Amino acid sequence: MALDRAASCCAAPLAAAAAHFSRAERAAMDRALGAAARGVRGANPLVGAAVLAPDGRVAVGRHAGAGTAHAEVVALAAARARGFDLSAATLLVTLEPCAHTGRTGPCAQAILDAGIRRVVCAAPDPTALAGGGAQRLRAAGAEVRTGLRAQEARALNARWFAARAAGRPFVTAKIAQSLDGRVAAADGTSRWITGPESRAAGHAIRARADAIAVGTGTALADNPRLSARTPDGAPAAHQPVPVLIGHRAPAPDSHLADSARLLRYPSRDLAAVLADLDSRGIGHLLVEGGPRLISAFLRAGLVDELAVFTAPVLLGAGTPALADLGIATLSGAQRWTPDPTGERLGAPERLGADTLVRLQPSPPDPPRHNHSTAPHHGED
Amino acid sequence: MALDRAASCCAAPLAAAAAHFSRAERAAMDRALGAAARGVRGANPLVGAAVLAPDGRVAVGRHAGAGTAHAEVVALAAARARGFDLSAATLLVTLEPCAHTGRTGPCAQAILDAGIRRVVCAAPDPTALAGGGAQRLRAAGAEVRTGLRAQEARALNARWFAARAAGRPFVTAKIAQSLDGRVAAADGTSRWITGPESRAAGHAIRARADAIAVGTGTALADNPRLSARTPDGAPAAHQPVPVLIGHRAPAPDSHLADSARLLRYPSRDLAAVLADLDSRGIGHLLVEGGPRLISAFLRAGLVDELAVFTAPVLLGAGTPALADLGIATLSGAQRWTPDPTGERLGAPERLGADTLVRLQPSPPDPPRHNHSTAPHHGED
Repeated sequence: MALDRAASCCAAPLAAAAAHFSRAERAAMDRALGAAARGVRGANPLVGAAVLAPDGRVAVGRHAGAGTAHAEVVALAAARARGFDLSAATLLVTLEPCAHTGRTGPCAQAILDAGIRRVVCAAPDPTALAGGGAQRLRAAGAEVRTGLRAQEARALNARWFAARAAGRPFVTAKIAQSLDGRVAAADGTSRWITGPESRAAGHAIRARADAIAVGTGTALADNPRLSARTPDGAPAAHQPVPVLIGHRAPAPDSHLADSARLLRYPSRDLAAVLADLDSRGIGHLLVEGGPRLISAFLRAGLVDELAVFTAPVLLGAGTPALADLGIATLSGAQRWTPDPTGERLGAPERLGADTLVRLQPSPPDPPRHNHSTAPHHGED
Repeated sequence: MALDRAASCCAAPLAAAAAHFSRAERAAMDRALGAAARGVRGANPLVGAAVLAPDGRVAVGRHAGAGTAHAEVVALAAARARGFDLSAATLLVTLEPCAHTGRTGPCAQAILDAGIRRVVCAAPDPTALAGGGAQRLRAAGAEVRTGLRAQEARALNARWFAARAAGRPFVTAKIAQSLDGRVAAADGTSRWITGPESRAAGHAIRARADAIAVGTGTALADNPRLSARTPDGAPAAHQPVPVLIGHRAPAPDSHLADSARLLRYPSRDLAAVLADLDSRGIGHLLVEGGPRLISAFLRAGLVDELAVFTAPVLLGAGTPALADLGIATLSGAQRWTPDPTGERLGAPERLGADTLVRLQPSPPDPPRHNHSTAPHHGED
């Protein structure tokens, strides 16, 4: 998807725009950002919205994942339910309202239909397909102001926008490992290192993803189905497309070979694989393994979100969770950052006896804390 | 230290004893247990105490670590500060009050001096040195009842009692690793994988320990000081004794070779090393590395507490956190359990960008949840 910044609402300089907002508007946008942060990553960006009534009351909504109502629509419904006078209210939204009909209708039209006349958006929607909502709102006579908390709003979806700008799906990689970083014991046994709570959470990620990729080695070793199941064992309503990457063919009688939906890529060119998946409408790819495939994605900088389930299990030997990343020395390590979003806003999560951390690549620009020169623990 | 169960207060059958307690006493003991659970593990067991006043008010105290006032003394001080009539109050304590003078005076005497006439203790103190407090209290005319929440109180310190029964220190092993379970990059660089917050927490553990052990390989590679420092870089008030285990000698000009306090054990017999440390009054040993020494302790079942700091750093190669544990297949893995104690009661802790989990060996007896037969995620 090409960027189309000319069509976006927020091209105006931020500093100039920042003066236009009342304290109540700032507070409402912060609540919208807080709601956005509690969303789940995937095919859609994290978005939150708040309706600010003339009497100061605020109704908040967030987008709860692909296929569900957009944040603006949720916030508008909440405001209506509480009897807000929408014609006198201001809608604040962390991302420019969409102007297109995807799985749900265009938000810009829903906002106009609700009678809203004043909109504040934090960040532009840079995608040519969904963007243009601000233009549409203005054309219909609504007042649209921009740039409030723009930096925070952009940071929230930085990797998502980068993936879209590159014309590829948002990529989540999942690892389920022992405490000492092994995904299988010395004899190859791996079911199960993590506990049932972790595996249920893994299936919840599958049920949100558009597709799941594994390498051919994992397909041959584990004969996976790559299906998503609910905690009671039933198939989830949404089933991801299975994707097999690598030169070897799956075993003829394997589950993947039996899948009519299987996408096979006998290739090592991951960028090309992702471009093809994007062209097929895959907006969110989950990479499940094995270590070589995940490591290839990591080396290429193509992982946007890393979900690591670690069980309090010690193996001392077996298959390492990651294969070679081309890192020879500590200063060359890949340093990631806790993703400060989701229900727990980035805190490590206990799942049964296991721990889940969700990470995002550290942003490239700001200077990093230099651990090696920390004065007070500079020696051991 | 030999067990001396004849001297303990709680030898009476639990079921018979359980009927003697009022609802207020049960609630107060639960608060004492809750206070105990928030303590830190080390040379002393986790202990909590509560003073129940005749009017139903409760004052709680806990032992905050070796060298500080015992739980009973803290609870009595809190009760006094609130004006409780101690001669009519009941003291509830999770462990039989001690009868000996260690770094602090005997609690049994402090209880009598405070005018307390009624004591309930949950678990006996099985150690010959500290035990006998119940006997002393009874001899002075106090009423002592036992067995309330005995199972919970014993479970809280199960590994501590086991270590004492075996005549060895309580052993904490500390690992600081990358997300993929590496403690050094391919070229051996390891400073620093974890961030400053984790390293400060590591120094806090050092400052509580009586001794710190490393293997000779780590000593030669890292030239560690094994000193404890405060967050501002100053030496901690309490400095652990450095311990070097292994056949190789430290480098002549190394920090450890310069230490007058260094204890050297050119031995692979860890049980003998621990017995000797115990005879020297070491009640809490911290094992810091390297992977071979920690793995030797783990293989021998000699680790009571495992503190694992994991940084969101990916290496893909380098030194694994653990060496061979003699585990060939997943069913033979060492399965540990989150230690449900400390300020966060066992929840994984975020330290900067890192995650800290504290684990204890899974108890050997109760049947474990069999992951391999979980019906609803039994296939992938």
